[in-house]
Amino acid sequence: MIYNISDRMKDLQPSAIREIFKFLSDPTIISFAAGNPAPEAFPIDIVRQISAEIFSEEPVNALQYSLTEGYPPLRALLKNMLATDNRFNAERDELIITAGAQQVMDLTAKVLTNEGDTVITENPSFIGSLNTFRSYRLNLRGIDMDDEGIDIAAFEQAIKEKKPAFVYLIPNFQNPTGNTTSLKRRKEILNVASKYEVIILEDNPYGDLRFDGEHIPSLKELDTEGRVIYAGTFSKTLAPGLRVGFMSAPNDIVQKAVVALQTSTVHTNIWAQLLTYRFLGKVDYITHCKNLSQIYKKKCNLMLSELDKQVSREIVFTKPQGGLFLWGSLPHGDMNAFCLEAVKNKVALVPGTAFLADEKGSTLSFRLNYSTPTDEQIINGVKLLGDTAKQLGYGY
Amino acid sequence: MIYNISDRMKDLQPSAIREIFKFLSDPTIISFAAGNPAPEAFPIDIVRQISAEIFSEEPVNALQYSLTEGYPPLRALLKNMLATDNRFNAERDELIITAGAQQVMDLTAKVLTNEGDTVITENPSFIGSLNTFRSYRLNLRGIDMDDEGIDIAAFEQAIKEKKPAFVYLIPNFQNPTGNTTSLKRRKEILNVASKYEVIILEDNPYGDLRFDGEHIPSLKELDTEGRVIYAGTFSKTLAPGLRVGFMSAPNDIVQKAVVALQTSTVHTNIWAQLLTYRFLGKVDYITHCKNLSQIYKKKCNLMLSELDKQVSREIVFTKPQGGLFLWGSLPHGDMNAFCLEAVKNKVALVPGTAFLADEKGSTLSFRLNYSTPTDEQIINGVKLLGDTAKQLGYGY
Repeated sequence: MIYNISDRMKDLQPSAIREIFKFLSDPTIISFAAGNPAPEAFPIDIVRQISAEIFSEEPVNALQYSLTEGYPPLRALLKNMLATDNRFNAERDELIITAGAQQVMDLTAKVLTNEGDTVITENPSFIGSLNTFRSYRLNLRGIDMDDEGIDIAAFEQAIKEKKPAFVYLIPNFQNPTGNTTSLKRRKEILNVASKYEVIILEDNPYGDLRFDGEHIPSLKELDTEGRVIYAGTFSKTLAPGLRVGFMSAPNDIVQKAVVALQTSTVHTNIWAQLLTYRFLGKVDYITHCKNLSQIYKKKCNLMLSELDKQVSREIVFTKPQGGLFLWGSLPHGDMNAFCLEAVKNKVALVPGTAFLADEKGSTLSFRLNYSTPTDEQIINGVKLLGDTAKQLGYGY
Repeated sequence: MIYNISDRMKDLQPSAIREIFKFLSDPTIISFAAGNPAPEAFPIDIVRQISAEIFSEEPVNALQYSLTEGYPPLRALLKNMLATDNRFNAERDELIITAGAQQVMDLTAKVLTNEGDTVITENPSFIGSLNTFRSYRLNLRGIDMDDEGIDIAAFEQAIKEKKPAFVYLIPNFQNPTGNTTSLKRRKEILNVASKYEVIILEDNPYGDLRFDGEHIPSLKELDTEGRVIYAGTFSKTLAPGLRVGFMSAPNDIVQKAVVALQTSTVHTNIWAQLLTYRFLGKVDYITHCKNLSQIYKKKCNLMLSELDKQVSREIVFTKPQGGLFLWGSLPHGDMNAFCLEAVKNKVALVPGTAFLADEKGSTLSFRLNYSTPTDEQIINGVKLLGDTAKQLGYGY
């Protein structure tokens, strides 16, 4: 039989990253391609204990249907946590629990866009979100970045030209580049957004994992006008398998997001919500995140120092202040050939093209993940990367 | 600020049923309005034990990112279970795990429809699915039913007129009517679908909860042409809070559904998938479902006999052979006024209008749920329903 696939899905390809998961069953390949939190960062003992408590104290609550908006005590707790720095504004905002931050992207696109609308993004940006937007038949306009974030003149120009439905930004330790948008640039972004009445979707999955430099206020925190939708998640600070994230946004938007959520997943797995709630009551979350950040700092520094020792100096790498990723750029040559050669040498990277707003664009860059591999894998994998660079003629 | 809500969400209202949840905090109201499985049907001890095993044996697997398609051993097990009666055809189909059956409706609409397409449904039908289809800006064409299912002549006429993207059907113990489509009618439906090359989305959340009459093969089982998408769930046979369902469908459709799933929830909560897998290995699922069915049989029979004793004979109720719902119909008068009077009398029903494909349509019917209330609540609630009928002048 021939099946008539919708226009929105006909040409949409699986995420290169999710697809890479399938090849990771080859145990001889060292993967710098995933974006998994370090397994040693999972608070397994606490989670085990909390789960036992849930099934001892409130088993029916953990199994029965629950509210679409999310578990009320978890919502209240998060509102309180986020209100301290205005990431939740009680007079203006609502907060709901989602199946990871990815569902916030889905709900935002569903609620705020019509087919053919434009979304402005950083270029490169997170492929998962780009594909979400593509699945709504949105046109993506990527804005190139420098070390401080997106180019403001190009941003303003794009807004004038395209009148976007919203702007999607990852200001902290961006996926894939590892770069952080400076405070000055954040303020400039908000000024331009305000001038043209544009909504911003701020994705902050890594914000709690800063291991270097000073905290920079989020766009949501700096926003005084109710134009920022904030996507948060516990995927990187508790466990991604739980699929627990949240949306903190102006109430008018959230109310529609609730209706959209009803029509897709009904509500987020309730055991995972109970678990997250109890977890936040049991640990000092700030200390917990600081401890996690130290794990990632160590891994990041190890990868950077090995890259410095083992890999051609012609290849330039970013130096993230947090998060899970860094970004390598070739001086010349063929990035896809480089990634292909690397995987033949048993080390997997993600080609930078996966992250471009324009699917037909080209880049000399690729993404490296340091959170998933062990220290030994980092050392050995970077060595293989160095070999690859040598084979392809990059100078040391 | 003014937010530009998308055309698809602008007029979509929250599901009346999900909204009713919010009022159930009034402990003096007896609710026949929900659709929750009976809490006493949850296998709490087994679930507690399995969850402890998971965190003792494979805690990282329960917390880490997993495959979008779902946990491979669970998929393999379900394929085997469903292959026995051809609900999964290994040569043609694929099977993926979703966040409940509702996500199957979402993925199907996303993959198979463009805005403005028509979906044919039973009339009335499950509001959750109708709203999913509405959220994709699909036109709904409802086909009225008799005791054996949809009117075949009207069905064929609608297909000829509307060339639907697909047909959505709940053949077993339908929500909201409790009616079951006969074998003869199922075959007629498939014949018509075959004649006009139409895809069918079969939603079977209650199929394992038959407590009366003989098993009838599913449309998926009867289909020889690969035109049925099958939506299954463990919400009614294990626990709805887990949000574990599945889609068994032709591979071409499932591959696109995987891409769509990547862009919304990434993957289904993995602990819940591990739990479901281990649960199916630990219990005899058929016996488990038979035991559950007896709980619902008892509740259904109690409600029916109380309705018979307490409520005006002018009001007619369906006699379901399984599932969670029955359907009452007034001979005349104002159904909304009846439901309003009932809730004033402290018993909650769902007005039948909530389930109409045409939101502006009218009906004299309402839905009753017997799975959630206790026996005592059934007896007392039906008494209040009888009082309501008397107040409104229906004869005994």
